[in-house]
Amino acid sequence: MKIKAFQDYYPEELSYCYGCGSKNKLGHQIKSYWDGDETYCRFQPRPEHMAVPGYVYGGLLASVIDCHATGTAAAAKYREENRAMDSKPAFRFLTASLKVDYLLPTPIDQPFEVRAKIKEVNGRKVWVESKLISGGKVCVKGLVLAIQVPENMKFGQPGE
Amino acid sequence: MKIKAFQDYYPEELSYCYGCGSKNKLGHQIKSYWDGDETYCRFQPRPEHMAVPGYVYGGLLASVIDCHATGTAAAAKYREENRAMDSKPAFRFLTASLKVDYLLPTPIDQPFEVRAKIKEVNGRKVWVESKLISGGKVCVKGLVLAIQVPENMKFGQPGE
Repeated sequence: MKIKAFQDYYPEELSYCYGCGSKNKLGHQIKSYWDGDETYCRFQPRPEHMAVPGYVYGGLLASVIDCHATGTAAAAKYREENRAMDSKPAFRFLTASLKVDYLLPTPIDQPFEVRAKIKEVNGRKVWVESKLISGGKVCVKGLVLAIQVPENMKFGQPGE
Repeated sequence: MKIKAFQDYYPEELSYCYGCGSKNKLGHQIKSYWDGDETYCRFQPRPEHMAVPGYVYGGLLASVIDCHATGTAAAAKYREENRAMDSKPAFRFLTASLKVDYLLPTPIDQPFEVRAKIKEVNGRKVWVESKLISGGKVCVKGLVLAIQVPENMKFGQPGE
């Protein structure tokens, strides 16, 4: 049986995100999973995702780190409450702040992996630390402050 | 006569960037210009660039801020030396660090503007501060550390 990614459990209004929405056909559709106490996401950049020839565009790397971090924050919250990710009420996180440090250029001709863990939790605020690894080297480090959205906050529907 | 954007002066190897390369047909192709001591870039998000219905995906906003900042760093360097942007040697900047704070959701149904200025210069390091404005409100703040690439650094060509 195929293991479902965090994003496959997202409620309807979060399933159209350009970075991670499983229903956004033109988006990146990243998929995040648990591996022990860490989470990971593997991504194969496309040729057009270049910064300079041979290397991945930093904005794409920031995007994958961003969505993987909000997914990690939600998954950690479910795990903390020992609840399945499709149980209600749904935990939804949005990014309040994103910091990305580019240490090495990330090769475009191979998949990279983002590994994340929870650094700190303070009420509805969750700090998620990420490392982006390609070819065994840490190319980028990320820190995301994800905020849990109140359960009663209303989102629109696509097309509204 | 149409005013050329910073990106229209970029050397070949920087013209395929997914965020700002004028030759990347699948990329965002952002365009940055001077306005007094500030620079600006206007961008109309596409419907698929959503985070949640009605609002723009944060990874896209980070991407536009990133490329507009490296463009601003290069333009400021040319201006400092009172040189045209197509004169040689070309100034090339890459992003070392990107910090983005999301203050308000950015509406997807209207263009937004990123306005930037140089905060600090220390040798080859340039810090660029940005505000992303939509509907008259500052929705996002950005801080980019751009590093000037040595003139003799070799880049590959697309397809290599």
